[in-house]
Amino acid sequence: MVELKDDERLDYLLAEDLRIIQSPSVFAFSLDAVLLSKFAYLPIQKGNIIDLCTGNGIIPLLLSTRTKGKITGVEIQKRLYDMATRSVAYNRLDGQIDIIHGDLKEMPKQLGHSKYDIVTCNPPYFVTPKEGKKNENEHFAIARHEILCTLEDVIRVSSQLLRQGGKFAMVHRPGRFLEIIELMKKYRLEPKRVQFVHPNKEKEANTLLIEGIKDGQPDLKILKPLFVYNKHSEYTDEIKEILYGEK
Amino acid sequence: MVELKDDERLDYLLAEDLRIIQSPSVFAFSLDAVLLSKFAYLPIQKGNIIDLCTGNGIIPLLLSTRTKGKITGVEIQKRLYDMATRSVAYNRLDGQIDIIHGDLKEMPKQLGHSKYDIVTCNPPYFVTPKEGKKNENEHFAIARHEILCTLEDVIRVSSQLLRQGGKFAMVHRPGRFLEIIELMKKYRLEPKRVQFVHPNKEKEANTLLIEGIKDGQPDLKILKPLFVYNKHSEYTDEIKEILYGEK
Repeated sequence: MVELKDDERLDYLLAEDLRIIQSPSVFAFSLDAVLLSKFAYLPIQKGNIIDLCTGNGIIPLLLSTRTKGKITGVEIQKRLYDMATRSVAYNRLDGQIDIIHGDLKEMPKQLGHSKYDIVTCNPPYFVTPKEGKKNENEHFAIARHEILCTLEDVIRVSSQLLRQGGKFAMVHRPGRFLEIIELMKKYRLEPKRVQFVHPNKEKEANTLLIEGIKDGQPDLKILKPLFVYNKHSEYTDEIKEILYGEK
Repeated sequence: MVELKDDERLDYLLAEDLRIIQSPSVFAFSLDAVLLSKFAYLPIQKGNIIDLCTGNGIIPLLLSTRTKGKITGVEIQKRLYDMATRSVAYNRLDGQIDIIHGDLKEMPKQLGHSKYDIVTCNPPYFVTPKEGKKNENEHFAIARHEILCTLEDVIRVSSQLLRQGGKFAMVHRPGRFLEIIELMKKYRLEPKRVQFVHPNKEKEANTLLIEGIKDGQPDLKILKPLFVYNKHSEYTDEIKEILYGEK
């Protein structure tokens, strides 16, 4: 049994045998989070993994199907932390996943430096809008805009949390690619793998997946691109497989 | 009539109604040069265009089909300069294309700063090999390795030659992408468009096309990817169209 609040739903987690609490007015996970969960390298048997800006816990839940390592999720919004915690409990993953209610900027002090093998993050994509433009609700605004944490916060904190050789994986927008590269270099996260995601074969990329290794050697690979929709505006086979485990 | 020397051939220039002198032992143009010629933005009616590391003049010849602007090619190897000059004459393009025999590092002094609207370059891709490893002939070695000019030389000189708002277009390898970005930023060529070229749909990119604008505003677009071969190991339709003008 699970307690659902307000307009929350208990959704199936796609290809996985999991359920997740979502709410149209508070938070629902996006394709980007699913793509990041597939993109990130994970140790299979053990290891310490941390997901920053975890929202309703979508990424820890998906990662738990690929590793026996310990997974920590960090979320600053109490309401989302609460959804994530209940989803973890519902799936009986309390032993593997720990959700922390807190500010990611405090985590290196709270959890220790260089303790993690993997950091994942699906951060807010947009710089803080002007006061007048914030017409969406606060939950969405915080998840989408750099109100409570900036790109530099995410990258600096990730580097502090990672051990040498640990991996940082993030999803973001190509428009901020150069800034991401610059900040990753600044904080010693050497970019190693990039995958661009295009709405379809004819369009510019609108999403990027990037992985860096702390103190790694320079050697960037541009992976094969992902296309989300085919020419009939249906999900492509590769996206269907990622989402539903079918072709 | 044209004088052909040694093992030179007079090849058809693919989709265009042009011929070009090539030699298997000295220089033959690559798909990369053709892709760059299609990728680069060009003014149609007028403008000053310069192609560095021009080799046998493949890029000026191809660009001449897309613009009425004046095109200069710069080549340091006498033998290649000579081939390029004869190809230009054969195609009766002496009025539009001027091939200079010289070192690109001398061009800003020789031709003037901030005089060009467009710089194109298909430079050597590899850093200089150790002495023992240079087992190929000198013509190839100079075209492929940074023996007579480095990536930084190319980018610094391009920036010097370009007027404010002028465009720099280059083809290179993804393994040097971060270095390219860093150098372009250093020399005020803001990266604006990148297109990755993959051998096929399943493979990592092995080529990149990049365009920057001198003193442009940051706003990078990742264009739709290009795939060279289909699953039957034939050229894809898009490559056939670029090469032969057919689908």
